[in-house]
Amino acid sequence: MKISFCCTDTKAEPWLAGLRAALPGDEVEQWEPGAPPVDYAVVWMPPQQFLDEQPQLKALFNIGAGVDALMKMRLPLHAAVVRLDDAGMSVQMAEYVSHAVIRHFREFDGYEADVKQGKWSYRKPRLRTDFPVGVMGLGVLGERVATTLRQFEFPVLGWSRSPKEIPGMQCFSGDAGFEDFLSATRILVCLLPLTPGTQDIMNRKNLSRLMPGGYVINVARGAHLVDEDLIALIDSGHLAGATLDVFRTEPLPPAHPFWQHPRITVTPHTSARTLREESIAQIAGKIAAVQAGLTISSLAGVVDPKKGY
Amino acid sequence: MKISFCCTDTKAEPWLAGLRAALPGDEVEQWEPGAPPVDYAVVWMPPQQFLDEQPQLKALFNIGAGVDALMKMRLPLHAAVVRLDDAGMSVQMAEYVSHAVIRHFREFDGYEADVKQGKWSYRKPRLRTDFPVGVMGLGVLGERVATTLRQFEFPVLGWSRSPKEIPGMQCFSGDAGFEDFLSATRILVCLLPLTPGTQDIMNRKNLSRLMPGGYVINVARGAHLVDEDLIALIDSGHLAGATLDVFRTEPLPPAHPFWQHPRITVTPHTSARTLREESIAQIAGKIAAVQAGLTISSLAGVVDPKKGY
Repeated sequence: MKISFCCTDTKAEPWLAGLRAALPGDEVEQWEPGAPPVDYAVVWMPPQQFLDEQPQLKALFNIGAGVDALMKMRLPLHAAVVRLDDAGMSVQMAEYVSHAVIRHFREFDGYEADVKQGKWSYRKPRLRTDFPVGVMGLGVLGERVATTLRQFEFPVLGWSRSPKEIPGMQCFSGDAGFEDFLSATRILVCLLPLTPGTQDIMNRKNLSRLMPGGYVINVARGAHLVDEDLIALIDSGHLAGATLDVFRTEPLPPAHPFWQHPRITVTPHTSARTLREESIAQIAGKIAAVQAGLTISSLAGVVDPKKGY
Repeated sequence: MKISFCCTDTKAEPWLAGLRAALPGDEVEQWEPGAPPVDYAVVWMPPQQFLDEQPQLKALFNIGAGVDALMKMRLPLHAAVVRLDDAGMSVQMAEYVSHAVIRHFREFDGYEADVKQGKWSYRKPRLRTDFPVGVMGLGVLGERVATTLRQFEFPVLGWSRSPKEIPGMQCFSGDAGFEDFLSATRILVCLLPLTPGTQDIMNRKNLSRLMPGGYVINVARGAHLVDEDLIALIDSGHLAGATLDVFRTEPLPPAHPFWQHPRITVTPHTSARTLREESIAQIAGKIAAVQAGLTISSLAGVVDPKKGY
C-alpha cells in the first residue's frame, strides 16, 4: 500500500522514519505536488491540491484531535477522515485543565503575587462546593478531564450534543439542557469540537448565564469564544477571569488585549500536543488493522461528516 | 463529659459552637488557666500549663495532621493523642502537589514568563517517563497524593518507614530502601511526619542522590529540609528547583533567601488547611464513638508515642 505524509508545520523525517518502521510492507513517502495517488494519507493542514490529487484515497489520518480545518476543505469522495483518538492527549488535557482549575480555586496566582512582595498572606479557604466545574464536550478528552476533576472532589457537570452518562456527575445534553448546565456552572471548560453549531458558543448571552464569579477555560478552538464578550464580562465583574490556550488567530496577534489582561492567563496552544511516537503507533496500528480486514468505519476516531467531528 | 478547647492562633467561637452542636450532651468550654480538669481536649499548640492540669484526660484531639510540636511536650500520662485523619486535608494535598508537579513538568512558569514578554513560545514536550515522582511518607496524605499522580501517568515511587503496598507504584521502605528510592526519583515530595528520625532528611547527601534535574516539593515540615543544602544544590545545577509550603520558622523570616530565589516557589503554609466543619464532625464523631464503648486505641489517627506519629 502507498501512504503519503502531508503535514504543514511538521518536521517530516522522524514521522517518515517512524511510519516506515511501523509499516515495513508499505511505501511511505512525503507528498510532493504531482506525486502518484496513494491509498492512505497522514495529514495536518494539507493543501487543497493534495486532496484533489487523491482519487483512490481510503482514509485521511489527521495528526490532531480537531478536524475543523479539514472539514472545511473539498475532500476525496470515498476517503474516511480519522482523528487521533487520545494518543497521549487526554492525560495532557487532564493536566492542563486540572492545573488551571486548581490554580484558580486555590488562588495560587494571588499567593504568588503576595510572595513576590515578601508578604506571608492568609486567605480564607474556599469551599469546593462553591466551584462547580462544567465541561462542554464529552468525547475522549472531555470525559478524561471531567473524571479527573471529580477526583479532586469538585462538583462536575457535563454537557454534550447527544446524551451521555458518566458516573459521579450530572450530564446535560442538547439545546434543551444548555441553560441549566450554564447556570449551574462556575468554572466552564470548553472541549467541544468546532462545528458551525458550536462556533461562538461562548458569547455574551451564554457566558452571562454562568454563576457569578465564573471562570472560563478554553482548550478547544479559539472560534468557540467571542473574545470581546469575555473581556466585557470580566471587566464588568461577572466573570473572575479565564485561562485560554487557543485563539481565533494563532500565534495570538501582538496587539490582542488577551496578552496583557491581568485576569486572563494565555498559553501558546500547548494544552495537548501531538506526541509523535504515540501517534505513529496509533495510525500504523489502524492502517495495519484495515489491511487485515477491519472496516474503516469501525476505527476509533472516524469522523462523521454530518456532525463534523 | 467535659471537653476543653485549647487552640493557639484559632478563633474559638465557631469551634465551640460547632462542637456543642455536635455533642449536645457534653460540656464544651474554652480552656482558661486553673479551670477544672476535663475528659477530652481539642488542641492546637496548647500551653504546657494546660497539659499539666489534666490528670484525668483520656484523649487529646489535635486539629492538624502533624503532631510533632505536641510530641515534644510533657503529656498527661494516660491521654491518647489523636491526629486529624484526612478531614478534607488529603484532597487539598493532592491538589497542591499535583499543581506543583504539573507546573514544573509542563514548564508553565516558563510559558508565563514568555507571555509576559509577549512571546508565543515553543517548547519541546517532555516525556513523563523522564519525571518519576517519589513520595516520602505513605500515610493518608501521602497515599492520596501518590495515587493522584499515578492518574496523571507519572511513574510514582513511594518510601515509608514500614513496608507498604500501593497498586501501580514501586514502594521502598526503611533505611535499606532509601538510596534506591532517591536515585530513581526526579521529583521528590515530602509528606513525612516530623520525628527525630526524619528531621533534616532532605540534606545535601540525600538530595544529591536524586536524578539530575531533580525537584523538591516539601509539604510536611520545614525541619525536614536543610535550607542551605537545597539552595546549594539548585545553584550548582544538580536540582532544577523547589516548591516549598513549610519552613523552619513560620512566617518565613523577611531576610530568608527562599523569598527571592528564582527557582524556588514559596507558599505560606497553605497546602492543606484544617477545615473546621470536617474537623468538628470527625472529632465529635470519635468522642461519641468512645462514649458508646469504642476503645480509644482503635480510633483512626491515634498516635504511637514510640514512633511519634
